[in-house]
Amino acid sequence: MKPGNKVKRIEGVLSPVITPFRKDYAPDSARFARHCRWLLKSGCAGLAVFGTNSEANSMSVAEKRTLLEALIAAGVPAASLMPGTGHCALSDSIEMTRAAVELGCAGVLMLPPFYYKGVSDEGLYRNFAEVIERVGDERLQLYLYHIPPVSQVPITLGLIERLLSKYPGIVAGAKDSSGDWSNTKAMLDGFAKDGFDVFAGSEAFLLDNMRHGGKGCITATGNINPGPIAEVYRNWRSVEADRLQAGISATRKIVQKQPMIPALKAAVAHFGNDPQWRTCRPPLTELTAAQEETLITELKAAGFSMPGLAS
Amino acid sequence: MKPGNKVKRIEGVLSPVITPFRKDYAPDSARFARHCRWLLKSGCAGLAVFGTNSEANSMSVAEKRTLLEALIAAGVPAASLMPGTGHCALSDSIEMTRAAVELGCAGVLMLPPFYYKGVSDEGLYRNFAEVIERVGDERLQLYLYHIPPVSQVPITLGLIERLLSKYPGIVAGAKDSSGDWSNTKAMLDGFAKDGFDVFAGSEAFLLDNMRHGGKGCITATGNINPGPIAEVYRNWRSVEADRLQAGISATRKIVQKQPMIPALKAAVAHFGNDPQWRTCRPPLTELTAAQEETLITELKAAGFSMPGLAS
Repeated sequence: MKPGNKVKRIEGVLSPVITPFRKDYAPDSARFARHCRWLLKSGCAGLAVFGTNSEANSMSVAEKRTLLEALIAAGVPAASLMPGTGHCALSDSIEMTRAAVELGCAGVLMLPPFYYKGVSDEGLYRNFAEVIERVGDERLQLYLYHIPPVSQVPITLGLIERLLSKYPGIVAGAKDSSGDWSNTKAMLDGFAKDGFDVFAGSEAFLLDNMRHGGKGCITATGNINPGPIAEVYRNWRSVEADRLQAGISATRKIVQKQPMIPALKAAVAHFGNDPQWRTCRPPLTELTAAQEETLITELKAAGFSMPGLAS
Repeated sequence: MKPGNKVKRIEGVLSPVITPFRKDYAPDSARFARHCRWLLKSGCAGLAVFGTNSEANSMSVAEKRTLLEALIAAGVPAASLMPGTGHCALSDSIEMTRAAVELGCAGVLMLPPFYYKGVSDEGLYRNFAEVIERVGDERLQLYLYHIPPVSQVPITLGLIERLLSKYPGIVAGAKDSSGDWSNTKAMLDGFAKDGFDVFAGSEAFLLDNMRHGGKGCITATGNINPGPIAEVYRNWRSVEADRLQAGISATRKIVQKQPMIPALKAAVAHFGNDPQWRTCRPPLTELTAAQEETLITELKAAGFSMPGLAS
């Protein structure tokens, strides 16, 4: 392992940042940096760029490296970044993880290889171990990304235990997007004491996660509602916590009535007065006009706003 | 569209060629070319390199381009090749498809983008249309790859109809790995008359496919049993056809008792006397010694052999 000083671990609310595309589907780095700056200003502790909600798997490694470099060049601190670096191809995961570490990112959030289904924990262990060994850099802080509803390939507790025991300090935590609180709790009960930082995959579980030793959440709606979600994080020990949690959960319920990614993009397009944000890369499609109208009407009726977004 | 002469379409038995890796998991182009030549000599009409059985999704686009170029440089005719070029990332699918066309490959076999689940046919249509338009080359012959048990993203009959009507001549056919004969038959009934070439995804359906207007099969076990499978293809109108089909189906049954990809590699390693073939890239793992012993013992008991493989 190449020696190096780790960046301070991120705690709090992270947004899996949506990626803006031009009409020709090319990523738009200027719009991307603008949204990232707004998120950090509005309460996000960190940015989980290239997550599921970022349409990251619809982009090549080269496109993501270019975006990441542009983001840092535009002044977004690398210490606030936890890019997604897990791909189906071992070689892609190595390349993207190495790039993130060399750029000084605080951590990486790694999907398991997700094409083959029903693979063994031994095979997944070899995948993560190979990435860690090839990157070979003590600065690496790797967060495991458990999202079985999409990836269809789970990160089991047994796999975490084995990786954490072999690579303490490098295996830094997980994002649990299973939607199953009992699984998040099992991660916390099993590994939080060993410095394994658990992030809930949705703000719906933020308060529960904090009360059981978790470190925050990485949530889709962090893209549009970062302030109120960060307020729950900051006040999780307060008597107001449950009331605050109810508020952010209500907003989430409105958004998730629609397909999540195009809904987030529609909200940014509408409240930021920037229509190009609606574009999704295939295979995703933008909301229909009727879906967007329902979304915006319901958000407005609930008093929702995105302060400081429109330029 | 850039004008160009299409290569003659492949008909018959194609093998989704397994990919050899070195101990460090690097693809081994010399071993790959050797196996490809053996397959063509042994009855395969074509090579569907970079398919599911090739561990293609465990390799980067750059690794696959290098392998494809090396294969052609080693004398394997481009006109016999139908590489897999479908990726999650639109940009990867475009790059790989363009490379295959420019190298003169007979066709490409395209997975849908498979990370996001439950996507619309409109989104999938946009993905394939965007690849076709960006490649923009009349030489392109695109085969749609329907493998819902693995990709979890189906190619519906409605999607085929729409693509075939917009891009006749370019949309050339499909491989149906659904394992559902009624779906294969619906593809044949709906589109074979329009020059849409349907390949069964397993030799178990080879005879049925030929009797209903199909063009052959692209099958995992084509990697180890190409001769007898090609014999069924050549003799499908003969009175011997059902007996021949029973023979190849019996061999397949032995192989598919084990995890398919490592089983194919174990058979090539054993009968070719070349142990390095056993290596799989993570997340796949090689057979256990017990699994391999069962496989080889049962194959030998059934009179199986791989003539001309051992050098």
